[in-house]
Amino acid sequence: MPIARVTRRVHFCAGHRVYNSDLDDEQNRSIYGACSNPHGHGHNYELEVTVEGEIDPQVGYVMDLRRLKGLLEDEVLADLDHANLNVDVEWLADVVPTTENLAVAIWNRLAGRIDGARLASVRLWETERNSAEYRGG
Amino acid sequence: MPIARVTRRVHFCAGHRVYNSDLDDEQNRSIYGACSNPHGHGHNYELEVTVEGEIDPQVGYVMDLRRLKGLLEDEVLADLDHANLNVDVEWLADVVPTTENLAVAIWNRLAGRIDGARLASVRLWETERNSAEYRGG
Amino acid sequence: MPIARVTRRVHFCAGHRVYNSDLDDEQNRSIYGACSNPHGHGHNYELEVTVEGEIDPQVGYVMDLRRLKGLLEDEVLADLDHANLNVDVEWLADVVPTTENLAVAIWNRLAGRIDGARLASVRLWETERNSAEYRGG
Amino acid sequence: MPIARVTRRVHFCAGHRVYNSDLDDEQNRSIYGACSNPHGHGHNYELEVTVEGEIDPQVGYVMDLRRLKGLLEDEVLADLDHANLNVDVEWLADVVPTTENLAVAIWNRLAGRIDGARLASVRLWETERNSAEYRGG
Amino acid sequence: MPIARVTRRVHFCAGHRVYNSDLDDEQNRSIYGACSNPHGHGHNYELEVTVEGEIDPQVGYVMDLRRLKGLLEDEVLADLDHANLNVDVEWLADVVPTTENLAVAIWNRLAGRIDGARLASVRLWETERNSAEYRGG
Amino acid sequence: MPIARVTRRVHFCAGHRVYNSDLDDEQNRSIYGACSNPHGHGHNYELEVTVEGEIDPQVGYVMDLRRLKGLLEDEVLADLDHANLNVDVEWLADVVPTTENLAVAIWNRLAGRIDGARLASVRLWETERNSAEYRGG
Repeated sequence: MPIARVTRRVHFCAGHRVYNSDLDDEQNRSIYGACSNPHGHGHNYELEVTVEGEIDPQVGYVMDLRRLKGLLEDEVLADLDHANLNVDVEWLADVVPTTENLAVAIWNRLAGRIDGARLASVRLWETERNSAEYRGG
Repeated sequence: MPIARVTRRVHFCAGHRVYNSDLDDEQNRSIYGACSNPHGHGHNYELEVTVEGEIDPQVGYVMDLRRLKGLLEDEVLADLDHANLNVDVEWLADVVPTTENLAVAIWNRLAGRIDGARLASVRLWETERNSAEYRGG
Repeated sequence: MPIARVTRRVHFCAGHRVYNSDLDDEQNRSIYGACSNPHGHGHNYELEVTVEGEIDPQVGYVMDLRRLKGLLEDEVLADLDHANLNVDVEWLADVVPTTENLAVAIWNRLAGRIDGARLASVRLWETERNSAEYRGG
Repeated sequence: MPIARVTRRVHFCAGHRVYNSDLDDEQNRSIYGACSNPHGHGHNYELEVTVEGEIDPQVGYVMDLRRLKGLLEDEVLADLDHANLNVDVEWLADVVPTTENLAVAIWNRLAGRIDGARLASVRLWETERNSAEYRGG
Repeated sequence: MPIARVTRRVHFCAGHRVYNSDLDDEQNRSIYGACSNPHGHGHNYELEVTVEGEIDPQVGYVMDLRRLKGLLEDEVLADLDHANLNVDVEWLADVVPTTENLAVAIWNRLAGRIDGARLASVRLWETERNSAEYRGG
Repeated sequence: MPIARVTRRVHFCAGHRVYNSDLDDEQNRSIYGACSNPHGHGHNYELEVTVEGEIDPQVGYVMDLRRLKGLLEDEVLADLDHANLNVDVEWLADVVPTTENLAVAIWNRLAGRIDGARLASVRLWETERNSAEYRGG
């Protein structure tokens, strides 16, 4: 059977402060600049999740994208949307909320929950001009 | 001379909590829902500012959009980008940071500073799906 | 109080055939071309609804956009999304489903259901390049 | 009959130099900056043309947007697409090619050629962030 | 010579019903939900086709994208635009029109027709949020 | 450490004429069509640059995207923005300014200047519908 890749984009709004608590304020300011402003800021994030697998010959799907959407809503958006990524999310404790780290954390959150297909890519857009992608490597 | 309208779009990232300090937490939660989550969230705002006026017959501009861009950078983005709209901005003190109120505050910030043309519209997009527009009325 | 305009964009996918049953097939073909192909086609519609009114001084909203979104979901999307606009929608019976006519029908569907603000515009995008707007005039 | 507004967006790529030949090079540089660089630059322009009128009760159109598209192709894009706006276009001779001036020139090009509806707006986007609109006023 | 990849995006509007005629209506409803509504719906599809090959040292092209555009218009859009994908297209007979299956069918339609370069990817967006990609694997 | 890919998009406006000076005008016209019009045209280019590498465990970055943005501004945009790509740019002398060739030239311009990460892709969009990508192959 042909192998294809299907992608679902979802969005969420969240606040964050790019800040490493192992470093002092001056070090944070020196590394992260305005991204470490003390009272935080936020973004409209766009999340693109791609899964890869054989197309089911009867159904015609690699994976039902409504099921992938539901999984993203339950496992990711329910926790991240309208949240503060530094303090509100248990599975982001100890994660400096850079786009790279968020993409890896979302990958780890999803990896064991896709059946019948392989998680291929998690790409997170922080703005229309900045993104990070993790492929599990 | 023909009268035209020119628009400049700029963007900024900011954090906010939609919260009225004259009300208690439960009232805020009842009115604003997840938008009043205690630790805040944020957005990639898109701001569209339109000015209207005669086209200068020699230059061909209603207003040099690089000048409008500079004005927006100095008077709006310098304060709002990477800021927390509830606590970091002097001219937003006492403003509940809804999109409507932000559009009015940005209008008031700009109104006296455009010469040779008339401020016609301030439209602020909080997300790709929500916006508020103020025309000074 | 300042008067502002707030807009909510929503989307739906629908099928249609641009066809007037008072005319014969050849007349339909002559007027509408490929848009009247007998088995129909469809679009990802984008609907922008704008309401206008005073900003509530305590709350800071013209109208809660989550309430407007809910209204659009209940009164418009529940009927139009994944539907065939020629045959599935009671309130579109006898409407040739051009973008103009759909905008007017959606306006009429919403007009009596907005409280505390005035419906100002219904703009419907059939594609990224074609739209129709109705302002109740 | 209800009055509606229909819009067609088209695009074209063109080169230009913002330069007024009544002024010397230094004056041009002082007014237009890098936009007057001697060898020119260019843009992917997006043109939005809106016409307004009664919806024809039988057909359901204010104006067939395929006809509007054809008019734009014949009267505007045939001359402007892949052209240099300073030297290639007869009806832009003596026009400093600012966005404002181009919008007015396109309006004048179209105004007598729309039948059964009223030309309402010509909006030209030079980039995703800069536009000018002319409404015939 | 350097090897590069060039991509052309085109769009088409089509109707479909996600429905497998080997299954009964209840099974279809259970698998596809509203996507199998009996009278169909439709989409504005965006199709991205990528070809890969050496850059011709004299011409500077992997493949003239106007030629790729022409090929897509003749071999794909002429059949799919304004069509009903379930009944109007000979080369989609017996294909359940999921995005995955359509991507594979379009690949097969194009594969033998690109000369001087290798077809690398067919990506089809059903909406701005859902896509499927086939790389011939 | 996990390996991720980060992307920065930037834009510039430039003029060009697709023209090979080793060929005569008729040959150029035959190969490039309107793209070789003698007075040139131009585009709003979008440039996407991706770098790949380990995520720094302390900082959480593959590479600070503000540093990548700065590099692109200094090494690419300072030369290309508002320029004529045929005559104004030293490092494009003898390059026929097709999108493919520009992507390779930008890659070569950047390749030695990224430290701590690997340049993975340079993708250049000439319009929203046409792009070329070079991965150093």
